[in-house]
Amino acid sequence: MRFWIWAAATMLQGADRATLLTRMDNRAGQFGEISRQIWEYAEVGYKEHKSAALLKAELQKAGFRIQDRVADIPTAFTATWGQGKPVIAILGEYDALPELSQEIAPQRQPKANGAPGHGCGHNLLGTGAAFAAISVKEHMAENRMQGTIRFYGTPAEEGGGGKIYMARAGVFNDVDAAITWHPGNANGTGLESSLANINAKFRFHGRASHAASSPQSGRSALDALLLASHAVELLREHVPSSTRIHYIITKGGAAPNVVPDFAEGYFYARSPSMPTLDGVWERMLKCGQAGALATETRLEVELVNSVYNVLPNEPLAKVFQSNLTALGGVKYTPEERAFAETLRKTFPLDGQLPLGSEERIQPFQREGSLISGSTDVADVSWLVPTAQFYAATYAPGTPGHSWQATACTGASIGRKGMLLAAKVLALSAVDLLTNPELLKSAQADFERRRGTHVYRSRVPPDRKAPLNYRDAPQ
Amino acid sequence: MRFWIWAAATMLQGADRATLLTRMDNRAGQFGEISRQIWEYAEVGYKEHKSAALLKAELQKAGFRIQDRVADIPTAFTATWGQGKPVIAILGEYDALPELSQEIAPQRQPKANGAPGHGCGHNLLGTGAAFAAISVKEHMAENRMQGTIRFYGTPAEEGGGGKIYMARAGVFNDVDAAITWHPGNANGTGLESSLANINAKFRFHGRASHAASSPQSGRSALDALLLASHAVELLREHVPSSTRIHYIITKGGAAPNVVPDFAEGYFYARSPSMPTLDGVWERMLKCGQAGALATETRLEVELVNSVYNVLPNEPLAKVFQSNLTALGGVKYTPEERAFAETLRKTFPLDGQLPLGSEERIQPFQREGSLISGSTDVADVSWLVPTAQFYAATYAPGTPGHSWQATACTGASIGRKGMLLAAKVLALSAVDLLTNPELLKSAQADFERRRGTHVYRSRVPPDRKAPLNYRDAPQ
Amino acid sequence: MRFWIWAAATMLQGADRATLLTRMDNRAGQFGEISRQIWEYAEVGYKEHKSAALLKAELQKAGFRIQDRVADIPTAFTATWGQGKPVIAILGEYDALPELSQEIAPQRQPKANGAPGHGCGHNLLGTGAAFAAISVKEHMAENRMQGTIRFYGTPAEEGGGGKIYMARAGVFNDVDAAITWHPGNANGTGLESSLANINAKFRFHGRASHAASSPQSGRSALDALLLASHAVELLREHVPSSTRIHYIITKGGAAPNVVPDFAEGYFYARSPSMPTLDGVWERMLKCGQAGALATETRLEVELVNSVYNVLPNEPLAKVFQSNLTALGGVKYTPEERAFAETLRKTFPLDGQLPLGSEERIQPFQREGSLISGSTDVADVSWLVPTAQFYAATYAPGTPGHSWQATACTGASIGRKGMLLAAKVLALSAVDLLTNPELLKSAQADFERRRGTHVYRSRVPPDRKAPLNYRDAPQ
Amino acid sequence: MRFWIWAAATMLQGADRATLLTRMDNRAGQFGEISRQIWEYAEVGYKEHKSAALLKAELQKAGFRIQDRVADIPTAFTATWGQGKPVIAILGEYDALPELSQEIAPQRQPKANGAPGHGCGHNLLGTGAAFAAISVKEHMAENRMQGTIRFYGTPAEEGGGGKIYMARAGVFNDVDAAITWHPGNANGTGLESSLANINAKFRFHGRASHAASSPQSGRSALDALLLASHAVELLREHVPSSTRIHYIITKGGAAPNVVPDFAEGYFYARSPSMPTLDGVWERMLKCGQAGALATETRLEVELVNSVYNVLPNEPLAKVFQSNLTALGGVKYTPEERAFAETLRKTFPLDGQLPLGSEERIQPFQREGSLISGSTDVADVSWLVPTAQFYAATYAPGTPGHSWQATACTGASIGRKGMLLAAKVLALSAVDLLTNPELLKSAQADFERRRGTHVYRSRVPPDRKAPLNYRDAPQ
Repeated sequence: MRFWIWAAATMLQGADRATLLTRMDNRAGQFGEISRQIWEYAEVGYKEHKSAALLKAELQKAGFRIQDRVADIPTAFTATWGQGKPVIAILGEYDALPELSQEIAPQRQPKANGAPGHGCGHNLLGTGAAFAAISVKEHMAENRMQGTIRFYGTPAEEGGGGKIYMARAGVFNDVDAAITWHPGNANGTGLESSLANINAKFRFHGRASHAASSPQSGRSALDALLLASHAVELLREHVPSSTRIHYIITKGGAAPNVVPDFAEGYFYARSPSMPTLDGVWERMLKCGQAGALATETRLEVELVNSVYNVLPNEPLAKVFQSNLTALGGVKYTPEERAFAETLRKTFPLDGQLPLGSEERIQPFQREGSLISGSTDVADVSWLVPTAQFYAATYAPGTPGHSWQATACTGASIGRKGMLLAAKVLALSAVDLLTNPELLKSAQADFERRRGTHVYRSRVPPDRKAPLNYRDAPQ
Repeated sequence: MRFWIWAAATMLQGADRATLLTRMDNRAGQFGEISRQIWEYAEVGYKEHKSAALLKAELQKAGFRIQDRVADIPTAFTATWGQGKPVIAILGEYDALPELSQEIAPQRQPKANGAPGHGCGHNLLGTGAAFAAISVKEHMAENRMQGTIRFYGTPAEEGGGGKIYMARAGVFNDVDAAITWHPGNANGTGLESSLANINAKFRFHGRASHAASSPQSGRSALDALLLASHAVELLREHVPSSTRIHYIITKGGAAPNVVPDFAEGYFYARSPSMPTLDGVWERMLKCGQAGALATETRLEVELVNSVYNVLPNEPLAKVFQSNLTALGGVKYTPEERAFAETLRKTFPLDGQLPLGSEERIQPFQREGSLISGSTDVADVSWLVPTAQFYAATYAPGTPGHSWQATACTGASIGRKGMLLAAKVLALSAVDLLTNPELLKSAQADFERRRGTHVYRSRVPPDRKAPLNYRDAPQ
Repeated sequence: MRFWIWAAATMLQGADRATLLTRMDNRAGQFGEISRQIWEYAEVGYKEHKSAALLKAELQKAGFRIQDRVADIPTAFTATWGQGKPVIAILGEYDALPELSQEIAPQRQPKANGAPGHGCGHNLLGTGAAFAAISVKEHMAENRMQGTIRFYGTPAEEGGGGKIYMARAGVFNDVDAAITWHPGNANGTGLESSLANINAKFRFHGRASHAASSPQSGRSALDALLLASHAVELLREHVPSSTRIHYIITKGGAAPNVVPDFAEGYFYARSPSMPTLDGVWERMLKCGQAGALATETRLEVELVNSVYNVLPNEPLAKVFQSNLTALGGVKYTPEERAFAETLRKTFPLDGQLPLGSEERIQPFQREGSLISGSTDVADVSWLVPTAQFYAATYAPGTPGHSWQATACTGASIGRKGMLLAAKVLALSAVDLLTNPELLKSAQADFERRRGTHVYRSRVPPDRKAPLNYRDAPQ
Repeated sequence: MRFWIWAAATMLQGADRATLLTRMDNRAGQFGEISRQIWEYAEVGYKEHKSAALLKAELQKAGFRIQDRVADIPTAFTATWGQGKPVIAILGEYDALPELSQEIAPQRQPKANGAPGHGCGHNLLGTGAAFAAISVKEHMAENRMQGTIRFYGTPAEEGGGGKIYMARAGVFNDVDAAITWHPGNANGTGLESSLANINAKFRFHGRASHAASSPQSGRSALDALLLASHAVELLREHVPSSTRIHYIITKGGAAPNVVPDFAEGYFYARSPSMPTLDGVWERMLKCGQAGALATETRLEVELVNSVYNVLPNEPLAKVFQSNLTALGGVKYTPEERAFAETLRKTFPLDGQLPLGSEERIQPFQREGSLISGSTDVADVSWLVPTAQFYAATYAPGTPGHSWQATACTGASIGRKGMLLAAKVLALSAVDLLTNPELLKSAQADFERRRGTHVYRSRVPPDRKAPLNYRDAPQ
């Protein structure tokens, strides 16, 4: 409905563009290796010590100034080059997911049983973003450009909410636009939003007893959790169907012959709207309380994390779309194609894009569409104009958060998508640095969408980043 | 351990006894017909209008004085003959069970689908008891005996608690001993107790909504009930194993496409001890409350009925044992035996008495043994010395509350057991009327067992007999 | 995207239109009374004997030829006037919903506890449709128009699938276009579809036993149903979010002290796509089977009904939109407005249209939108070009299938919406009768949308209309 | 009912007895220290490397011959002294329980969060038994007694079934009688049996998927486990009430935003009769299968362990009773009494023995009574005459498998009970070594009770001891 016009002349053109892209092609191998190294580290949220150090070293070597331990988080940092306005932020992530360890193989084959793996491709995300930042810096230096390029090393995107604590520390205050990307099974961008979420550990405390000789003396914390789970299942019918609720049981008793005096579930709720989510969440708390009430146990709730829904930004997304379209998708070698074909036999393909779609750019996502996941990029998007795109780093159709995704993000397939992404980020950053009208449009669009809603993270103000949120309960 | 001696001379002996028994044999056919008529009526609790009328008429004809509508209950009455002390009560019941309608056939074959049936044999119970009362009266008249024989027409034993309301009306105040029997799959008596129970309807009130177009606007009363049920299942592990908990769903929604704004479950808890049961019951209420809490519905609890555990009485039970032993069990004809054999193929026989056991009297049940059901005879047993025995009216092994039991209680097998029971009741009543020492022993045993516990029915004092408790919820 | 043009000249214009509308205004009171009479009857599906008779009589009186007992259903009929092509069908319904009995009052106040009520406004639907048919006939007669107008008296829309059996009987074979309306809380039409559905009774057969004395001998059919219900709840997360699943428990045991040997649930699944629904349904059957497996009971499934998703028709819907827009919405009196205001306090108003919206026509619903209910109008829509619109008969925001809807459909508010609907139907029927191009467009749109999919009702071919589907299980 | 007479003269008398007991009093401190050391080690089943080594060293030092790594189990051993018949076995255990770590304090205060603790007192059990064996050896040596005394170091009693694998290795083949004890909250012995048990891990395998963006592609292994758990809860009502069923969830998903492709529960069933248990177990397997069926996941069952019910032995138990009675109970210091009093405030005391009961010996347990736990001592009891007694090592009323028990078994209270136990074992072993008639009676009683039942462990014959059964699933 709305209409955005940029003079084509303002976009990065001609020889400069070619130089930038050629230089990136030349360094693709080096950054490919870095992404693979982080894939091997496979460090979970807030534990990405080696991964963050590797990227920091690379940025430092390239002349960036490092601000370390942002918000007292050992693996959160910024790396800045240049000075003055505009300030363009490129966001990077590098945390892995528990239990998704996998060899680079098209059948389930963990490298180490139960170990983490990069099933969401953040090894590519962070490396590709740093690659872009360094490439932009070189371009800026060469062209003596005004402004600041800043890489954000943002830990624990997967449930840890690193960006929320970084935002509270004020590191986004001077930013004019924030851009980033995400690994995906296709190439595209648009006005899609994401799901706001709140998640918490429900801990039930009961009374232990010998389960065979005196079960009547025990009060089972596991019973409470089972009941709360059932209540949450019943709740699914009575919330808007865009809601997402899911949970796991992180502790379900110590030994079968002891009535469990402790049990813990980890519950998530998501919705495209934070006010709607508040209502759903209140009811999930009631489900937990009901579990405790019925079983004479006690409920303790630790709110682990909460992120907002993404506020899209049309001018920024249009820049991405333009650069994506200009560069086109990725091309598989025959071996890569064979790998993708074999892999695609391991998941359902209904409604999925066909093989070959990795070579194309998807149509611009219309207003109101949703990626059904959540991201702490969203919290940034309520503070400054922000946009992201996705690039094909997994074989078409591959579900996120799967061993198949881990396999792809360690393989050459993934690195091809990363190179495309780094180029799009770099070109777009340069576009933003050189086109003040574009930033103005982005700001106007941001203000219009934000409206009167006052951003307030549902993470309690006094909460520190949960550096150990991935540890097993004791 | 304790030891009771009665001079054999005080028991009904010789010619008198023979006369009484012969007269009863002569009238067996007539009372058999009455029991069959009540079997055909198959009226559920508090609806036993025709059944009660039939017995009342018979007793009136025999010269008994009727006190009708005891405790404002249309089907509760007493029938008294004689005067002065001692007062011997014979208790009778005549209510049927829902949905146990069955032809007199050894395979499942309802007379009318969904209709009630005498799966607990109360058609025999009430008729046999009245038969005994009338026979005692004739014996007393003939022998010009002192004292009072009184038949109690007690409705709604199956969950309606008729005797509780009758007790509140004071009709047991002048009684010296209460005796009764129960149909069973063997012959015997002893010191067994029964389970105290509390039962109630849990009614959940939610908010209706179209289940397809706006399920999120609805608050499901059925969800609440499903959750409360699950909570109750989880509770089973954490109560003493002599506890019994069971329930049905009497209303689970009106139409599938409407989120149910009403649901009702009917819950029972039982225990050999009323104080223990109080604790279990409190936790069942919490299960119900938890269902409401989790689903944002409202719980309303109607306590329908509650009976005590039976306080056994050793002197009275010894009188039964002596008379049972003297009379022996029942003898099947070849046809009856074939019927029983076929019927026994329809239920599991593990641990059950063999065919032929109906001819024998079981050993005296020791202290601490339990019939795992409940009965409002128990409430009488905490007020006056009370005892009961059982007689083989179902084929050996037949479970109570089954269509198989309905089949037997309408058949000649059942009537044979009833004749035995009527004789034992009559002989024992005469023993009690003629032996003051026996009544003194019974009273002493009663006081010792009751101890300091003060009988207080858990049925709320202001509650009227729930005359419509068998009706479907609206 | 597609584009439809009609010469404005072809639509009913000028004086003729005014005559038709004036005549309808004059008869509004009479048909209002009929709708109120059917509201009082409140007969559930396939039991609408008095309601159908009333409409039939009215149509017969107006000169329509009646075809009675279509598909051997006592309350299904057609009423035809005129002859030859084109044949325009107007569909009417008149079944009530269980347990939604309600006085015309803005607070919950059943006329009769547990009785049915017109919580979906079919009293207005059928009456308004018949009113339109009669008005069209008069207009045709007066103007000596060519063609046939036919009213379809279609019973048991609410879960009974009357139109499916009527379709099998061939009564739609000669129809050129089918039009109808539905009571609603606003005025509008468009390209929305509906949910295909399959629904069935899951009957579990177990083994009865005394729940206190031998629960171990019983196999609980209720346990099986509770477990199947839980399984279905767990399934909700793992189906597309446009799926709808809901159920009630129609039988949950006979008496609490008997282990239930029979239990019955009534399960619905819905989806915008029949092939997707097939997959969901298969999994619901597994949920039922799992209940039986775990509890050693037996599952019996009776498929009660299944309807398709609506195939929208753009040319027909545009005719409605044009006539709706020309007529405008409904106007409340101050008293009606006060009633609506009070009523609106009894349900949540988030996201609902405001009071006053009843005066307006809603924007044309775009492709892909959904009414989240189901209707057997859908089965007709896969056979002939079909369209429907909705008119404001309930106060804005009122949920369907609620007591609030019952209150409105018996009140003057409801009759105002019905008059609007009858007029739109009549005007549109006349448009179709007089404009062959319009019918051609409708046919072309129908064929394009239907594509290669072959309509096949999931109701088993040998199944007769379930005339007693609303009866309680025995 | 049966009656056993031994000439008092055959029991250990007079001076010899005094010598033995005095020597034991002198060494009580040393063995107290050993028990405390094993309490500190707190090693779980099959991991008792340091605990076993400590006892082995002590026995070796005392001159016992060690047979190490029995049945290829690193922590299973026998220690033998003497030769020829009779062979008297004293059984010892030393494994701790997960998560019961606790300071010696009367309030909950883990030494290390989540660490194991001796909540079943096996530190005392094994040490006391070894103390007894060494004392018997000294007595035998001094008195040049004929026969063999053998200590059995039996690992993993708590669910690992060490004795089953040791029995399969043949180490009980030459034994005439096996004796042992168990820590308890009172002193006593008798004819009680225990519960046979079968336990297994139910592992569900599903399909992972992103829980927010494609939950419909996932098949949740956790859903399967939740459903199986509910099914098991429903089963509780329909098994004999002496059955015990309990379980924990050992793995309930990896991350909340991934549909769990793996979940694991650890299920136990117990019954006083192995054939009854077989039936219950079969139904639990169906519960697991139902979970898999409903959720389209796959079930894998690993039978972890199974032990028999204890076959009591009256002659052996009577020897214990006689020696217990002669020695009397234990005496608390004022400090110990205060500790016990404070501790008793942390658990319910209904039906528990009062403080002071630790000084008394309980009445001989009659036939048919049950300890409601299980033990692999039972498997030995079906192979050779076996008996055990319990001694007050926990404050009266303390539940087993509780932190309170851990506190006591590390404290002086526990060591007092251990000294009593060691003395009773030693005196009884000497009685058995010197009284051939006693062994004959024991053998006769054993044969009579065993009857025709052929012992066959339900542990699969090809299964090795599950040395890692306490490890977390991967």
